[in-house]
Amino acid sequence: MLPRLWPAVLSLGWFLAAIAAAEAVVAVFSWFIDDGEFSAFAISAGVTAVVAGGCILTTSGRPFELNFRDAIVLTVSAWVVVPLFAALPFLLPPVDLTPVDAYFEMVSGITTTGSTVMTGLDSQPPTLLLWRSTVQWIGGIGIIGLAILVLPFLSIGGMQLFRLESSERGEKTFPRVRSIASAVGQVYLLLTALCFICYWLLGMSTFDALNHALTTLATAGYSTHDASFGYFDNPAILWTGTVFMACGAIPFLAYLRLVRGGFRREWIEPQVRAFLATLAVCIAVVAVWLMAAGHHFGFDALTHAAFNVTSIVTTTGFVSTDYMQWGAFAAGTFFLLTFVGGCSGSTSGGMKIFRYQMMFGMVGQHVRQAIFPHSVHHIRYGARVVSGEEAASVGAFFIVFMAVFAGFAAALAATGLDTTTAMSAAATAIGNVGPGIGPVIGPAGNFAPLTDVQKLLLCAAMIMGRLELFSVLVLFMPSFYR
Amino acid sequence: MLPRLWPAVLSLGWFLAAIAAAEAVVAVFSWFIDDGEFSAFAISAGVTAVVAGGCILTTSGRPFELNFRDAIVLTVSAWVVVPLFAALPFLLPPVDLTPVDAYFEMVSGITTTGSTVMTGLDSQPPTLLLWRSTVQWIGGIGIIGLAILVLPFLSIGGMQLFRLESSERGEKTFPRVRSIASAVGQVYLLLTALCFICYWLLGMSTFDALNHALTTLATAGYSTHDASFGYFDNPAILWTGTVFMACGAIPFLAYLRLVRGGFRREWIEPQVRAFLATLAVCIAVVAVWLMAAGHHFGFDALTHAAFNVTSIVTTTGFVSTDYMQWGAFAAGTFFLLTFVGGCSGSTSGGMKIFRYQMMFGMVGQHVRQAIFPHSVHHIRYGARVVSGEEAASVGAFFIVFMAVFAGFAAALAATGLDTTTAMSAAATAIGNVGPGIGPVIGPAGNFAPLTDVQKLLLCAAMIMGRLELFSVLVLFMPSFYR
Repeated sequence: MLPRLWPAVLSLGWFLAAIAAAEAVVAVFSWFIDDGEFSAFAISAGVTAVVAGGCILTTSGRPFELNFRDAIVLTVSAWVVVPLFAALPFLLPPVDLTPVDAYFEMVSGITTTGSTVMTGLDSQPPTLLLWRSTVQWIGGIGIIGLAILVLPFLSIGGMQLFRLESSERGEKTFPRVRSIASAVGQVYLLLTALCFICYWLLGMSTFDALNHALTTLATAGYSTHDASFGYFDNPAILWTGTVFMACGAIPFLAYLRLVRGGFRREWIEPQVRAFLATLAVCIAVVAVWLMAAGHHFGFDALTHAAFNVTSIVTTTGFVSTDYMQWGAFAAGTFFLLTFVGGCSGSTSGGMKIFRYQMMFGMVGQHVRQAIFPHSVHHIRYGARVVSGEEAASVGAFFIVFMAVFAGFAAALAATGLDTTTAMSAAATAIGNVGPGIGPVIGPAGNFAPLTDVQKLLLCAAMIMGRLELFSVLVLFMPSFYR
Repeated sequence: MLPRLWPAVLSLGWFLAAIAAAEAVVAVFSWFIDDGEFSAFAISAGVTAVVAGGCILTTSGRPFELNFRDAIVLTVSAWVVVPLFAALPFLLPPVDLTPVDAYFEMVSGITTTGSTVMTGLDSQPPTLLLWRSTVQWIGGIGIIGLAILVLPFLSIGGMQLFRLESSERGEKTFPRVRSIASAVGQVYLLLTALCFICYWLLGMSTFDALNHALTTLATAGYSTHDASFGYFDNPAILWTGTVFMACGAIPFLAYLRLVRGGFRREWIEPQVRAFLATLAVCIAVVAVWLMAAGHHFGFDALTHAAFNVTSIVTTTGFVSTDYMQWGAFAAGTFFLLTFVGGCSGSTSGGMKIFRYQMMFGMVGQHVRQAIFPHSVHHIRYGARVVSGEEAASVGAFFIVFMAVFAGFAAALAATGLDTTTAMSAAATAIGNVGPGIGPVIGPAGNFAPLTDVQKLLLCAAMIMGRLELFSVLVLFMPSFYR
């Protein structure tokens, strides 16, 4: 039995309408600054609008209710198809990227990964840079919506922990799902505006501040400069970036709780506490190591450690300096940090902190059970007892994450990448981080030298990682079609 | 509450007595061939015998019953202390290794890993080479005993699947645990003898045939030549090695079932079928790739693929050629194969096939549960339904395996190894495989260039991996001492 397609087509129509509107706005920007991108964006907006209209007109008017299959098809098709239309301006003059490069750039954008195939960013048309940032910002709000509204109800990968209904924290006071979505959108907008103002006050140009604010809150990582944040060479800007990247990796519902309930201990979910503690420990270790190894000293060491560690852990992908120059330990550490990720319900990707907390609990319970076989031992997430099914769900996610990682790493090695680059590219794509390690895709490199096959593999990895793997994998299960 | 130590001391006494006896036998061998090692082995046998006697005399005579804590302390102390005494001959003239090198060599021996710090094997005293092989052979029967007699009753890492009592296959006809152990020992001896005869008939010298037979069945990997099996340059020997390495990675109880019950389908446990299928698929992929890439052709490609893939999957560690010359795909593949491992109840290490089967089942069940939330879905291992606790146990093992791997890789990177070498060294040590990838510890290299700290880290990794991680990790849990 094939799943019905019209709910996916209808939703896709609305998503494409949003993209068309964004392309139109950017076209207007281009018309004002006259950087030669007006016609590319105007044409793209037109084509996208026509397709969006077609999708909506052919499918609307029916009662819209999503079942499991509809939600999967809608989600996957949105993240596969939207980048196609977002990539249109890159295919037209004056940029003329190859179709694969354009698609890679926009998949990396919409998934908030931040890996890029474009070089010479500093001399690219401003409109194009703004479009990259805008797509990442849209991708950020998209994934928050997915993580709050859709994934928890699919019971995959442990996301059922975050069902609003089952929360004991009084979300019943929020009238409806749609008002939550709109409130979260306002928080996202507000934090982005705040980040923009801070960057601007600290000396970024208006254009740089806007672009970096958009990609900071989305924990996405596109910059307007090849040197990323290294271009600004300003500790205050690096610390501001650090703080707002961390803000982007905190669940946006937490901000709502803060606004509506005031600052109480319980608004800090267990995952938020663990996330901040993980950040603090990793930053301290790297800072101490930087000083011990003589690469940076004092406050400078702390600044670079904080910025780059936060960038990788939150899966943003900005860099303040080429940390591959820091030697083997830094390379190994940054590779491992690729597997961490921020909080669920935020814009960040990766395994995510709550799954590590759950896994830590699972191992502890297993060992206590082995030592005291006649007692009953529970796994807890904060105050809550985790069911066996929820724990198994997180275990399954970890297994699949590692299997998908190994599969993509092997496939990339088969296409000729060296072991380190292959593993690091697979990890950074699945985790939606951005830079890898090594000379090719490291913080000072980019993804342009890769072959088309490698780029398409990474597109698949970015989309699978962004959609928490299972949303994509169920499409390959025969039982999905029964 | 500290665990009582006398059961561990008593058992250790008997293990050391066996080591002393083996050292004495090898001393006699040295006396006959007069290679200058007689006094080293005679002194070592004497010292070991005195310590063994002391352990036994001070603790024997009490009723010997093991509880959980005793079993853990006994197991870990056996694998930590026995290599100390096995290493004595290496500390004495004419070899004079450093203490860390000697301990590394014997930890690698007793854990059947096969990583070596010795170079110029072809010109080492034969007695010393025989001793390395003998220690690996003893380590092989040691781990089979542990996997059959001890680990299943500790309920850790999924080993409870292999409790003899809970087996539906009629092990009740075996009178007692001790007779099972003795029967398994006979099978081990018989297969080793058979392997020796095959090697010898195919042209190995008697000495080479003996040494390689001892280390083939133990899936251990020490050779008498720096070039390992590359020295023989004989396809028939490579295929014989392939077959007997696979034999060493099959559960030894399976052979008992075959002997006592005849060849029936049910003697082939699910893990054995999956193991053979995995081998076949990996060999086919590598062979096809070797031909496509032009490194080897026809039967030659199949031979080298079969030998080296089987060597890594069974965690033996022999090599027939420097497969790092085969390029990036081979390096990546051999790195991934380090994580496979053979069957439980065999001499091979690593994650082991049955855990992958269980994890495959867990993921499948999770996805089916997501698609059909109102049905009940079970995980099966063969015909048997796996309990949630058993599945969680395997999940916990995988999590801990990956965490321990990441921890050792990071520690090795912190001591200055490059990312690939650090990861590959950690993986090959925890999996008890032997060679890693890369120029230093790859198939053509060895572990001599590493620092003492790196070698000791790898000793810890080899012992933890050999004892299925949890046996060692519980020692670090406060609740173990409550």
